[in-house]
Amino acid sequence: MSIAPLRLGVAGLGRAFSLMLPTFLGDARIVLAAACDPREAARGQFARDFGAPVHGDIEALAADPSLDAIYVASPHQFHARHAEIAAAHGKHVLVEKPMALAMDECDRMIAACERAGVHLIVGHCHSFDTPYLKTRELIASGEFGKVRMIHALNYTDYLYRPRRPEELVTAEGGGAIFSQAAHQVDIVRLLAGSPPTRLRAAVGNWDPRRVTEGAYSAMLWFESGAYASLSYNGYAHFDSDEWTGWIGEMGNRKSPDDYGAARRKLAAVASPEEEARAKAAGTYGGSAYKPPADDDEARAYQHFGPIIVSCDHADLRPLPDGIAIHADDEKRWVPLERPAVPRHEVIDELVAAVRQGQPPRHDGRWARATLEICLAMLQSSKDGQDIPLAHQPSW
Amino acid sequence: MSIAPLRLGVAGLGRAFSLMLPTFLGDARIVLAAACDPREAARGQFARDFGAPVHGDIEALAADPSLDAIYVASPHQFHARHAEIAAAHGKHVLVEKPMALAMDECDRMIAACERAGVHLIVGHCHSFDTPYLKTRELIASGEFGKVRMIHALNYTDYLYRPRRPEELVTAEGGGAIFSQAAHQVDIVRLLAGSPPTRLRAAVGNWDPRRVTEGAYSAMLWFESGAYASLSYNGYAHFDSDEWTGWIGEMGNRKSPDDYGAARRKLAAVASPEEEARAKAAGTYGGSAYKPPADDDEARAYQHFGPIIVSCDHADLRPLPDGIAIHADDEKRWVPLERPAVPRHEVIDELVAAVRQGQPPRHDGRWARATLEICLAMLQSSKDGQDIPLAHQPSW
Repeated sequence: MSIAPLRLGVAGLGRAFSLMLPTFLGDARIVLAAACDPREAARGQFARDFGAPVHGDIEALAADPSLDAIYVASPHQFHARHAEIAAAHGKHVLVEKPMALAMDECDRMIAACERAGVHLIVGHCHSFDTPYLKTRELIASGEFGKVRMIHALNYTDYLYRPRRPEELVTAEGGGAIFSQAAHQVDIVRLLAGSPPTRLRAAVGNWDPRRVTEGAYSAMLWFESGAYASLSYNGYAHFDSDEWTGWIGEMGNRKSPDDYGAARRKLAAVASPEEEARAKAAGTYGGSAYKPPADDDEARAYQHFGPIIVSCDHADLRPLPDGIAIHADDEKRWVPLERPAVPRHEVIDELVAAVRQGQPPRHDGRWARATLEICLAMLQSSKDGQDIPLAHQPSW
Repeated sequence: MSIAPLRLGVAGLGRAFSLMLPTFLGDARIVLAAACDPREAARGQFARDFGAPVHGDIEALAADPSLDAIYVASPHQFHARHAEIAAAHGKHVLVEKPMALAMDECDRMIAACERAGVHLIVGHCHSFDTPYLKTRELIASGEFGKVRMIHALNYTDYLYRPRRPEELVTAEGGGAIFSQAAHQVDIVRLLAGSPPTRLRAAVGNWDPRRVTEGAYSAMLWFESGAYASLSYNGYAHFDSDEWTGWIGEMGNRKSPDDYGAARRKLAAVASPEEEARAKAAGTYGGSAYKPPADDDEARAYQHFGPIIVSCDHADLRPLPDGIAIHADDEKRWVPLERPAVPRHEVIDELVAAVRQGQPPRHDGRWARATLEICLAMLQSSKDGQDIPLAHQPSW
């Protein structure tokens, strides 16, 4: 039985799209059928690359009757409106994380998709990565007992990568809480297998040249009695990929000797305008844009830093190329085949929903719960106290 | 100028003493001059090993006019009383961590030593370890800017090592909070260089066969604005020494293949009584006791798990054989010479205090502040909220 590929319209040809492009190119279940972007250069490249229609705005894109679904990859602050427009035109919605910037935006998105009878999937997010999904399966098997404690950390140079000015403004969805905690929280929720009930957090905002949250530590408590500790440092000089076998976030091999590249490059940039130009130049349609390289031989699964899930009878560590099971009696390594296509898990979930009607895991309610936790991090750090969580779906 | 060695009396010839013995044997500044212990076999071995007087109780030991100082290494619940007795006899006091089990015990110990005009030093604790002291110096130099965030973790098989029954009863000073957090908290305080103001914690107590705290995660906030995340798992199957170059807590080389030894041994033990007997047999004076091996060639500094101190311009990672400095421009390794004598730092501080009158860093007020935090961990986990800290000395 062959299934017709999904005809996908892309709303926003920026960084998120660039990161999904290898997936769309490699996965035969997807056809990039149309796009919109305010940048003419990006539209031009898309039209050339895919021989597909391009539009100046999402309304025109969503009106295209040939599309099955729209991938909303516009800047965070537009996610809600763009998802609503897509749904209003009867398109399934795949929206990038973070789902949105406020809870009421999530509610509107969920309502719009329900009204339209379309699926809403939020991703890519690293909780789609196979090592985490497999670890969740291992836990759910019951073989290792209950989840008791989770420890997640990630030390990166996130804050020193080239940014548009708005990406450094929290109110506009900038900073590590919206962009990075969204990954880590999603993964920890997935692995805990029980809804979190409260949170305590501290956020770090300590570089006066880039005034937004670059780091955090947080604790989460779960209905099951388990607790989790999450730490992220996007100002980091230490690279925690040292603890994931020098495989980077994108599943790429890294060299420990390639130290400090992001800070070095940024130091050569004179102004926020120049930085924004540099980012635009390196983005799809830009003058310095490089298409995805065909070096997938070296690729492992993507990841979001070291994670240790402690169960009664084992500690489980999802890693980019396998899962380390440290059990009562033995240490076991569950190897994972190299992914044929990066992030294929997003397409798995999208196709299963759209073609087989299978309810997606990463739906609107799931992602809203992660946003609730991200917002609670900011609130807890400001108020100096626990924040109870009210929008966590039960398992 | 040669200084006469310190004549040390030992109160308690158990596990703590065994762990300090290589230091006492290797450091010419110490003479083991007398001891007390309720176990006749331990007293017998001490008398034979050191040709020194032994006593059945601390009163008799403390009355020995030839002693300069008493090392209180009795079970935790006796620390306060034994320190008071030593001080009342005009002896300087080196007391094992945890200093005591309650704040008022600490107050009594501090008052007794002040009244007697003797020094009170609490240790060994891993915050004495040279890598941490050196890292503190590097931070204090100002070269790397302010401390912003600290991340400390340690995954061990602590709870599955042989125990006396009381070591598994929190009210009697058992469990990971009193025995293990005391190390990690002390190190984090040392490195933060600013007094902590509040704490939030979750403790784990999840093995019904060993009902005490075996794990925790905690957050600390400091006056400086920095925050720290601390996690410890003494139920662990994963061994975080994997992230310290397979050098163990005692500075010993470890093999990753030597997996699960503690759990395996414990599984062969039939009852708590048998376990207590096994522990006693392996302790000084016991039938299975092994004297410290002379394999110090392979030894690095002791440590208490991976720690990352994030400053404005560098992440510093104290490791058993050096300090990794991940700075803005470069990655630097500050190697540390192998220690000639393990834990010589305790003797450094003791001798400097007793002979040169130099106020010790790890004095009663310092250690009381760590106990306050350990007690606050238990309280915070129970109450489900932050605990403000009131007894933290200023820097």
